[in-house]
Amino acid sequence: MMITNDTICAVSTAPGVGGIAVIRVSGKEAIPITNDIFVGIKKNMSLFSQKAYTLAYGSILDEENRLIDEVIVALFRAPHSFTGEDVVEISCHGSLYIQQQIIALLIRKGCRSALPGEFTQRAFANGKMDLSQAEAVADLIASTSAATHRLAMNQMRGGFSRELTLLRTRLLNFVSLVELELDFSEEEVEFANREQLKDLSTQIEQEIRRLSESFRVGNAIKNGIPTAIIGETNAGKSTLLNRFLHEDRALVSDIHGTTRDVIEDTINLQGITFRFIDTAGIRDTQDKIESMGIERTFRKLEQASIVLWVIDVTQEIGKIKRLSERILPLCEKKKLILVFNKIDNISGSVEEEKERFALTLPGVEYIFISAKENKCIVQLEELLVRAAQLPETGENDIIVTNARHYEALTRALSAIERVRHGLDTDISGDFLSQDIRECMHYLGEITGQISTDDILGNIFSKFCIGK
Amino acid sequence: MMITNDTICAVSTAPGVGGIAVIRVSGKEAIPITNDIFVGIKKNMSLFSQKAYTLAYGSILDEENRLIDEVIVALFRAPHSFTGEDVVEISCHGSLYIQQQIIALLIRKGCRSALPGEFTQRAFANGKMDLSQAEAVADLIASTSAATHRLAMNQMRGGFSRELTLLRTRLLNFVSLVELELDFSEEEVEFANREQLKDLSTQIEQEIRRLSESFRVGNAIKNGIPTAIIGETNAGKSTLLNRFLHEDRALVSDIHGTTRDVIEDTINLQGITFRFIDTAGIRDTQDKIESMGIERTFRKLEQASIVLWVIDVTQEIGKIKRLSERILPLCEKKKLILVFNKIDNISGSVEEEKERFALTLPGVEYIFISAKENKCIVQLEELLVRAAQLPETGENDIIVTNARHYEALTRALSAIERVRHGLDTDISGDFLSQDIRECMHYLGEITGQISTDDILGNIFSKFCIGK
Repeated sequence: MMITNDTICAVSTAPGVGGIAVIRVSGKEAIPITNDIFVGIKKNMSLFSQKAYTLAYGSILDEENRLIDEVIVALFRAPHSFTGEDVVEISCHGSLYIQQQIIALLIRKGCRSALPGEFTQRAFANGKMDLSQAEAVADLIASTSAATHRLAMNQMRGGFSRELTLLRTRLLNFVSLVELELDFSEEEVEFANREQLKDLSTQIEQEIRRLSESFRVGNAIKNGIPTAIIGETNAGKSTLLNRFLHEDRALVSDIHGTTRDVIEDTINLQGITFRFIDTAGIRDTQDKIESMGIERTFRKLEQASIVLWVIDVTQEIGKIKRLSERILPLCEKKKLILVFNKIDNISGSVEEEKERFALTLPGVEYIFISAKENKCIVQLEELLVRAAQLPETGENDIIVTNARHYEALTRALSAIERVRHGLDTDISGDFLSQDIRECMHYLGEITGQISTDDILGNIFSKFCIGK
Repeated sequence: MMITNDTICAVSTAPGVGGIAVIRVSGKEAIPITNDIFVGIKKNMSLFSQKAYTLAYGSILDEENRLIDEVIVALFRAPHSFTGEDVVEISCHGSLYIQQQIIALLIRKGCRSALPGEFTQRAFANGKMDLSQAEAVADLIASTSAATHRLAMNQMRGGFSRELTLLRTRLLNFVSLVELELDFSEEEVEFANREQLKDLSTQIEQEIRRLSESFRVGNAIKNGIPTAIIGETNAGKSTLLNRFLHEDRALVSDIHGTTRDVIEDTINLQGITFRFIDTAGIRDTQDKIESMGIERTFRKLEQASIVLWVIDVTQEIGKIKRLSERILPLCEKKKLILVFNKIDNISGSVEEEKERFALTLPGVEYIFISAKENKCIVQLEELLVRAAQLPETGENDIIVTNARHYEALTRALSAIERVRHGLDTDISGDFLSQDIRECMHYLGEITGQISTDDILGNIFSKFCIGK
């Protein structure tokens, strides 16, 4: 994906019909091209003389002077615009026909249809933001909760970038000291105290490790906490999942445009997103646990942080015990919640049931519910939130949410670990210098100081068109 | 739906996630409320002192100074805005979360969620446009073809309104003359020559009739030309319809956001929309035409302007003849096209088939196709376009497209007819005056000079929110 000099255009508002739509034009020819199709309400007005950061009311006319729409045009001049180039934003009536006609007209006049994320890519190319900030723009637009919004906003505003720049500055000082020594190695001069260098590398290593480890939380916030609902085929897993999803759907239905796709299999509880992993039902026939189903489920279990084991409360205890021998060992490092379902079906009291089952598996979180009759679902959700155990993150905490950044940090971390180890074992300055520079390289990949067309193409192709 | 003085807000761009979204705020408190949540990038800037028709870059902060988004704010001051009130447009990142948060914040600060069409209704209430222009705004946004776009645009720009105002002025002069005579009736003065009055009423009647009759074309353009596809159960009606719809769908798939709902059962050929009427298949079993099915189809036929009769070319002629005795009389005032389908199934040449069938029903348009193999579909579409027989309409022709306007025009027409008839039969000035004023009343309903809350509520509730 090459950076080109041509002028690009796209509809920047959500696809579809709305009251208004905004078409963005960016590049050297943005003003002349728009001026060519725009007639202001004021006589003899021209976009060439229009001040930056002002609006003009007028009409868009095609080549045969047919009126396409009455619009408001907003003008931005390089470098004070989102892309850093001249930018015109045309605010038109939001019919698909008008959007299409204006785009087609702009293209006939010399614009090119913008690729996904191309406006943001130009902002990056023109130094308006670094790569991690550009990625945060996409995250911000995709954010659906307070937590994902806050993380993306912090990243977009450059908190992460500043931290990385600081780290690179410290690494640069570090490598300068080491390389200066190399230059004067004949003279056995020691410019830097080895103990000081060790301290420095330890500090940097800790800082990179902290960032790298924040990805566990960042990923959970961004993609949801992987949660598995397991249980026998008729235990009521689907009913429970639907109950969760339904409650959530009712909540989000206020937001127009939310489609089922977006929320499918994730729910948001108290700002925390849970992503449900699809598992096959476990079938326990003739006292023999069907191996296929359970093996598949168990493999899926590995991805989960939280496991909800749904148990039909009307089943006999022996079966549960057999299953628990398989399930419990797999959940050792996970949060396991036993969900005794179908309390609407029992003849005795819930208290009696509790006694019967609680004894079976002491020390594990459990709850008695009826998914069918919506009983104790709220309490189960409270258990889920508690099980999430996300640490409190402050307003300005830097949390890594991007797998690409995590990968680069992991590599930077192992480079700086080699440096520290090298200092401990007194390896030569040459090797130290090489490892420090490698660490800097990986940090530079995050901010885009080091980048390839492949990396850029991969990042920006995931953007929506118009941004 | 009462006009209120409070300040309203809504997302004005299409629902859903986009690169950017625009939130519109209108009313007396639009500037103070937005100023309260907006911090400009420039120190100590205030929206109060911000010039109209300019943009300000800054941040939206909530009550606890949490950053919701970095935005661009556009400022319009009364009366030079869409609504005629102070208006602020906040251009934010297009995530649902951000859109929702800003709207929620505005509401906490004293705004109210705008009702559908409420911005346009305020523009109407503040004299920025009349009612027919306000209705054209909704039509413009809903327009999906060059023709519907042009009609809505003309109406929004006030072509129709000016014509109606002219008519009302002439009617007012007319009624003044008649009423002046009434005031001086004791003195037997004749202020107006009766012949001149007759001429005047005839002219006005012709003009209103022309407008009223334009609805036939306007409605066909706006809602599509009602087209029925009839035929026996296995003649290939569904295949043909799918062929039409599929071709069309492929064309419109370039427009993002086009959903299947929008185009279902309508196709657009050379700018003309055809709306397909669903008819039951005719079943001809044991030489007896199944009465139920055919009766239902025949009733549906009444709505159609164009009828495509699909005939399985492999059927025997006798059957077709029997059916034609029933079908032909029902199509007398319609355009009938015989579609001989399944030419892929015949053993002989198409020419032979043509001879065999063409003789059967001379003088009617016919075509031989294969819906299955997509043969001659383009030619059939050409026949459809020709059958549409929509008159050429000029760029500025006034065409009535709105059923409400048509109804008012019909009533105005019968009032002015009574006037002309009254003049012919020398009825008293009292009655003449009453009829002229009734005619004016109905024309005034179209532009909204005369309106009720019911009418307004009905009109604006059909708008999208945010416009």
